[in-house]
Parts: sequence; C-alpha cells; structure tokens
Amino acid sequence: MKDLKYYLKQVEEIFAGEQFMAEPRELYEPIDYTLRLGGKRIRPTLLLAANVLFGGKEEQARDAAIGIETFHNFTLLHDDLMDRSPLRRGQPTVYTKWGDNTAILSGDTMFALAWRYFLRQPSPRLQEILQCFNETAIEVCEGQQKDMNFETMTLDEVSIDKYTDMIRQKTAVLLAGALKIGALYAGAADKEVSTLYEFGIHLGLAFQIQDDLLDGYGDTAVFGKKTGQDIRDNKKTFLPLTALKLCNESQRAELYSLFSGDNTEEEERVRRVMSLYDAVGLRAKIDEAIDNEFVAAVRCLDSIPADEALKLPLRELMETLKGRKK
Amino acid sequence: MKDLKYYLKQVEEIFAGEQFMAEPRELYEPIDYTLRLGGKRIRPTLLLAANVLFGGKEEQARDAAIGIETFHNFTLLHDDLMDRSPLRRGQPTVYTKWGDNTAILSGDTMFALAWRYFLRQPSPRLQEILQCFNETAIEVCEGQQKDMNFETMTLDEVSIDKYTDMIRQKTAVLLAGALKIGALYAGAADKEVSTLYEFGIHLGLAFQIQDDLLDGYGDTAVFGKKTGQDIRDNKKTFLPLTALKLCNESQRAELYSLFSGDNTEEEERVRRVMSLYDAVGLRAKIDEAIDNEFVAAVRCLDSIPADEALKLPLRELMETLKGRKK
Repeated sequence: MKDLKYYLKQVEEIFAGEQFMAEPRELYEPIDYTLRLGGKRIRPTLLLAANVLFGGKEEQARDAAIGIETFHNFTLLHDDLMDRSPLRRGQPTVYTKWGDNTAILSGDTMFALAWRYFLRQPSPRLQEILQCFNETAIEVCEGQQKDMNFETMTLDEVSIDKYTDMIRQKTAVLLAGALKIGALYAGAADKEVSTLYEFGIHLGLAFQIQDDLLDGYGDTAVFGKKTGQDIRDNKKTFLPLTALKLCNESQRAELYSLFSGDNTEEEERVRRVMSLYDAVGLRAKIDEAIDNEFVAAVRCLDSIPADEALKLPLRELMETLKGRKK
Repeated sequence: MKDLKYYLKQVEEIFAGEQFMAEPRELYEPIDYTLRLGGKRIRPTLLLAANVLFGGKEEQARDAAIGIETFHNFTLLHDDLMDRSPLRRGQPTVYTKWGDNTAILSGDTMFALAWRYFLRQPSPRLQEILQCFNETAIEVCEGQQKDMNFETMTLDEVSIDKYTDMIRQKTAVLLAGALKIGALYAGAADKEVSTLYEFGIHLGLAFQIQDDLLDGYGDTAVFGKKTGQDIRDNKKTFLPLTALKLCNESQRAELYSLFSGDNTEEEERVRRVMSLYDAVGLRAKIDEAIDNEFVAAVRCLDSIPADEALKLPLRELMETLKGRKK
C-alpha cells in the first residue's frame, strides 16, 4: 500500500541520492546545506502523489520533485535574508553563515538549478509544465511583495480579501502548482488537473491560516517557540483581520490602537490583544475558517474520478496538516 | 540593407512597445525602471541578427530577445547590490533607490519574467533553447562567484587561466548564448550553431579585456570616469596578471607588494602600478591579446556558410566594439 509514509520516504531517498555539491565550492556549499536541512518536503510529496494518482510512474516525475523543492528552498533562502531571520529549521540561515552576497547569489543559482531539474524530466506536455512552474514562481514573488507592503500599512488598510489574496500567492499556489505539475506529467485531463489545483489552493490556505492560529494559540511546549510573535511584529494576519469583524465599536478602536504602534509595553500588548481575541470568541471563528478550507479541499478530492487507494496519501497528508500543533 | 543600425532600432522599438508595469506596483516599478535605463542592448541585437543569419524571420525571435536582455538586466541589478555600486548608466541603482529587499525580490522576479518571454516564443527546438538559456544562467552565476572569490585572493593566487575562465563565464557565455539561441530559433545546423557560439566567446573575451584596458588607459574625457579604479580596488584583472609575465624579479616583487594592500598611499599606488606597466610594455601586449580574440572571432564568422549580407550586422558590431573608447 503506497501511503503518505511511502512517498515521504521516497522523497528522502531521492534527496539523499542527489549530488548538490559542485565548483565553485563557495557557491554550492550553501545550496547543498539548504537542500539538506530537511523540512516537511510537502511540495515534492504532493507532486509525486499527484503523478501516481493519474496513473503516472514514479520515476516519471522524480526530477520535477527535486525541482519544486529546490525552488521552494530558494524562496526561503531569499526570504530569510529579507526578513533577517537568524534561524531556519533550528539551524543558522545562509546569510548569517556566509553573508548577504552569498545568500543572494546562491539563491539565484538555486532558481536556475530548479529549472535544470525541470528541463531534465521529459514530457509531451513540457511547455505547459514549465509555464505552470514559471507563473507559479512569479505569483510567489508577487505574494512576497504584497506581504512586505502590509508591513507599512495600518490594520484598517489591510482587508481579509487582500490578506487571503496575499497568502494564496505566497503559499497556496506553490502547493497547487506542485500538484498540477505532477498531474500533467501523468497526462491527466484538464478538468481533473484544475480540480486538483483547487484542492491545493484550499490546502494551502488552510495551512497558512493554521500558521496564524498557532502563533496566537499554539502550545508553547509543542509549538517550539514563544506565541504572540505576530502581535509583537504588528503583523496583520488572519487573526486581527477576523477579530475586527467580531468587534463592537470600542473593541475595534482598541484593536486599531494596539496595532498602530502605540506606547503599550510589548508583553502587555500581547496580553491585551489576546484577551480581546478571547472576548470576541475569535478562536472558534478561526477554527471554522480553517475547517471550511479543509472541507472544500475534501470536496475537490472526492470529485476526482480516481482509484480511492491512490487518493490515500493526499488524504493522509491533509489529516496530518489538520492535526498539526506546530 | 539590414545593418547593425537596423537591428539596434528594432530592439529599441521592441522595448518601447513592451509593457513592464504590473501589480503590485512596488515590485514592478524597479523592473520597469531597470529595463528602460537603456544600455548597449548588445545581447538582444546579437540574438536577432543570429536568427536572421540562418534564415529566421525577425518576429520568430522577438520575445526571446526581450528575455535575454531581461535576464542580463537581472544579473546587473543583483551585481550592483552585491558590489554596492551606486550608479548604473549614470542613474541611481535599484537598491539605492528602493532598498536592498526590493532589489533582491525585483531581481528574482526579472529572472522569472525572462523565462516567461522564452516560454512564449514557440519553436520545435524549444527544449534545447531553454537548456542553453538555463546552463548559460548557471555559468553566469558561477562566474560571478569566482569574481567574488578573487577579491580575497592575492595576485599570485590568481592565474591568467583562472581569470580567463572567470570572464568567459561571467561575460562571454551570455553573448555566445544569445547568438546560439538566435541560431536555434532559425533551425541552424549544429555545426554552425557551435561555430557561432565560439564567435560569441571570442567577442566576449575581447570585450572584457578591453574593459580592463580602458580602466588603465582610457581617455578620461571620453571614458567618462576616473581611470585606475581597478588598481584602487586591488582587482586582479588581465592587466596585472599579464604584467607579471613581463616583469623581471624585482618588478614582480614590487607588483605583488602594490597589490597586497601595502601602505602606499592610494593615488601613489596607481601611479607606481601604471609606471611599472609602462616599463614592461604592457599596453602593446594587451592590445595584442584583444586583437587575437577579434581575429579568432572573425575566423569563426568567416567559416560560417551564410550570405555575406546577413553577416554585416555582426561584423559591424565587432568593429564598433573594436573601436570603443568607453
């Protein structure tokens, strides 16, 4: 039985068997380091599972699976530099270890290496696959820019619609794109490809809203980091944007004030925001929003005419994400 | 008669007719700015001329011409950030105007946009074309890394061979790649494609060695900037590396010392290096090296079995580069 565990193991073996080191060493060392840091490997797993779902053979999408993960890691590498994040998966980020210039250039090279993997994997629908990959890449960049734009905007300037559009581009389209590419390699029909893409979008939105939720309500012991960081960073996530809709007038004024860099001491600000969230019953509302996305995702997967046994890894992945505590 | 002027005008018209602005504005404004700064537009001109040389129709490579220039400008954008260069073509660079993060992300997006142009241009040999583009991109990154490596190396650690390998990757392969891609769109035979590629490599090496020469011997009034900057920056260019071969033992020791960050005052160091260059007759030797590359380039072009009238723009471009004073 090819379940989620089987595909995760597949992906681990593919990466273990791949050589990323090359000359000049100074350029490829950070690339090898980044690609071997691990992570959830969700995107290559989705790509392989989608390929098999439509009757593809596993090796038929092997290189594309490496390509999509290489691209994803490239975006993390440049994001960490832009966000000045010191750690990634508990290890020092590339820019802290090798400096800004190496982070820029190694990242650029990883983007090109992702293309090398895609170009290496033959398919009668290669142009369509490459176009999907590239348009996805452009959307990820646009999503990152929108996220950066939100930093200088006030809470009332960002709407739930704008925020959802941003996380769709920054996170969801890459999950959806990985699935679509896997399906295209298998030669799936257009209708099924687009339904699977929709499945990925809902999965991605659920994933990102969960991220926002965990920042506020995660169990610190399991979550592995201090909660409330988004509040400290004044981030206009799904939480405050949804809370606004539940607030009465005075609560809304308080929330605006707490997110406008007023003088409230940081930890006091976290406490006051969280107690406001509780007062308006935010958590139940967010759980509902996440659940809606998972339900929509299930509906997409149900409607695809494929062997139920082949849907298993995607259902398991969904369940794993649903229950995640970090 | 389709001469160089004709193709340069073509390229200008193509860029003038292209829309680069899109949403989010903060991402695309620096891209539009960069692509409209002008420049010599050598790469798209080479691509179009190579296409017509082998019987291609002009519109057959139009989008690829935009793609290759978009890629080139992406590398300049990130290089300027890494080198902290305040000006490009006399205008403020993107990172000085919009900040480091915008420069990183807009650059990444330009790389993807270059792909969009290539993927938009149909060809029966598309996979070969895309592979050529991508392998060229990887070499450019490797060349840039090698250039950065040289910064921390001493003069005796860098050899002429290593230096030539670096400028081949950093500069020459992109000119050669542009020509090859143009030829592939026209459906040229493999042998002619590779001869044209060689032509591009020699042209690129000549171009880069000229750059090194102009830094030392340019006419400041025409060159537009102060000469000797490479000496001030301790750059191990073709000049000191060739000079080493002409030096006697004591001159060699002096040159090593002047390039090893000794205490000589900066302008005095420039004067002493230049007078050492003159003492060993460096200029004639460099002129000879440049000439050798141009002669090799001409030999390649001569050997290609194509209508002489169609070779005209490439010959004219070579002549223009030969006579350049800046």
